[in-house]
Amino acid sequence: MHFVLDLFVCGAQPRHRCWGSHVPDPFVKKLIQQSQEAKQAAYCPYSKFRVGAALLTLDDCVITGCNVENACYNLGICAERNAISKAVSQGYRSFKAIAIASDLEEQFISPCGGCRQFIREFGSKWDVYLSKPDGSYLKMSVDELLPVSFGPEDLSMKKVLAIPHEA
Amino acid sequence: MHFVLDLFVCGAQPRHRCWGSHVPDPFVKKLIQQSQEAKQAAYCPYSKFRVGAALLTLDDCVITGCNVENACYNLGICAERNAISKAVSQGYRSFKAIAIASDLEEQFISPCGGCRQFIREFGSKWDVYLSKPDGSYLKMSVDELLPVSFGPEDLSMKKVLAIPHEA
Amino acid sequence: MHFVLDLFVCGAQPRHRCWGSHVPDPFVKKLIQQSQEAKQAAYCPYSKFRVGAALLTLDDCVITGCNVENACYNLGICAERNAISKAVSQGYRSFKAIAIASDLEEQFISPCGGCRQFIREFGSKWDVYLSKPDGSYLKMSVDELLPVSFGPEDLSMKKVLAIPHEA
Amino acid sequence: MHFVLDLFVCGAQPRHRCWGSHVPDPFVKKLIQQSQEAKQAAYCPYSKFRVGAALLTLDDCVITGCNVENACYNLGICAERNAISKAVSQGYRSFKAIAIASDLEEQFISPCGGCRQFIREFGSKWDVYLSKPDGSYLKMSVDELLPVSFGPEDLSMKKVLAIPHEA
Ligand SMILES: [Zn+2]
Ligand SMILES: [Zn+2]
Ligand SMILES: [Zn+2]
Ligand SMILES: [Zn+2]
Repeated sequence: MHFVLDLFVCGAQPRHRCWGSHVPDPFVKKLIQQSQEAKQAAYCPYSKFRVGAALLTLDDCVITGCNVENACYNLGICAERNAISKAVSQGYRSFKAIAIASDLEEQFISPCGGCRQFIREFGSKWDVYLSKPDGSYLKMSVDELLPVSFGPEDLSMKKVLAIPHEA
Repeated sequence: MHFVLDLFVCGAQPRHRCWGSHVPDPFVKKLIQQSQEAKQAAYCPYSKFRVGAALLTLDDCVITGCNVENACYNLGICAERNAISKAVSQGYRSFKAIAIASDLEEQFISPCGGCRQFIREFGSKWDVYLSKPDGSYLKMSVDELLPVSFGPEDLSMKKVLAIPHEA
Repeated sequence: MHFVLDLFVCGAQPRHRCWGSHVPDPFVKKLIQQSQEAKQAAYCPYSKFRVGAALLTLDDCVITGCNVENACYNLGICAERNAISKAVSQGYRSFKAIAIASDLEEQFISPCGGCRQFIREFGSKWDVYLSKPDGSYLKMSVDELLPVSFGPEDLSMKKVLAIPHEA
Repeated sequence: MHFVLDLFVCGAQPRHRCWGSHVPDPFVKKLIQQSQEAKQAAYCPYSKFRVGAALLTLDDCVITGCNVENACYNLGICAERNAISKAVSQGYRSFKAIAIASDLEEQFISPCGGCRQFIREFGSKWDVYLSKPDGSYLKMSVDELLPVSFGPEDLSMKKVLAIPHEA
């Protein structure tokens, strides 16, 4: 199982090792572990609710995020959105999976609806791992988490611009 | 079908007429029509994508909303969130259904993930009507649109506060 | 001072009584009082921090809002954005003033940055009244609260679309 | 001026070189340049409006961000919030300056109100550099950009919890 160690927080030269859409179980465990570590950086003085996320890019880089709250609660950023926007800022736009971790012992932490939409922007066929602190997890696809969704494709089929109206 | 006309945009004294969770079809049609009318107030100079929502409260008031965009795109408000926050500001917190309308001819307009979470805050058992301009619709429950969600109940079961950590 | 009573929560036919940009003091007091009343509808189980807003339209309607929080803190809506999006959904886009109220005894409650931008979308020359529970207030213009801002006008002067790049 | 080159995108071991709150001009130029480079990763298929940000931590690391938009416009993330949440996820919470870049030739790009509040969460005394593509800039403090703001300190002085009310 030494190859698990090959999964690394993303640096200069990600190595390419393609699984298609299947992430082997040891890698999932490692990804969840990294989401748990990411949780430790959470800035959550208001909710005290730490969340971490670990995003696996198409070329097997792992990019992590945590929640960052704000005195105006409504302006905070979730761990999942943090990880994805960080990845995009590093040039990534294709992802295989994202793992999410919190301190809730009794339930698998699931992404909020806002994050589901943010995740879905980059495809509806990849995997989301909802985890518990003990490392157990539930795997769901983006489609399962956000059924009947709309995304970038739908806006291009938009006939709206042709419709006369004042905005 | 005269009773359809009884459904009205909420004024001072809503009348109570309880259906449990079932909204009769003529009322659904009326609700969708009101979401279409609400769409006309949309402020969407950036996307040109008008959306309207009509929210049916437990006591059969209808409260409508439209999208309100911002030069900083990220700060805009969707029609659904507009309708719900408006309803809350008027003292409502229990809802039966929400209908959504857009100008997309070819697809049922569905709420974004952020709105699904906002809707879910007020219960996961009520109905969302995704519509087309011709009035046809798809009925889904909040649970179907946002499976494996978390809400107010989950935060009360939170053991997080007991966990020692610096935020 | 009987004319203070003429200021009313907006119904079907707002009366027109134009002050230009000057709102007489008794009207300010009334507007602040309405923001305090609006505060009572706040849905804020997470912060316990109630906020109310009362928006004065160009034709002297008052439209109120309160904060509406979410289990995903980041998805909540502030009182000011609630009031404005509600007003837009009712056909208003021109405003004279907005008053804000909270339960903080010792300081004038000011709008968060997100709300300042949302307010600024509808002009930078109108007035914001930051109040205390005792009714005392601080008057600031949108420009003072959000200096060096950008708004709808700036996007139209945008040369960006002409610049070749892949988004 | 060789020391300009010492400013680097943050890796494993940031070096400590303290300026107090003063950032020397060559470093400012370098910071702005990095915000311009960050802009190139922007995901902005909807606005076509690329924005980059470069954040200087207290120990002279530079962390960059770009805007990441969403088909639901309201759920996107600005460059500034991206850079800061990324920095927090890497363990940083103290910053000296942030530079912002866009493609607008004719005006200094300023942060939206939401970002000003997000920036202010981490102090009101640090510097924001609004830049043009030619590298010219305007320096403003957080306080100047968001006067009369509230932040983490204010919530601790909150008497609100003591006030009886139902949320
Ligand atoms: Zn989220
Ligand atoms: Zn939405
Ligand atoms: Zn606000
Ligand atoms: Zn911003």
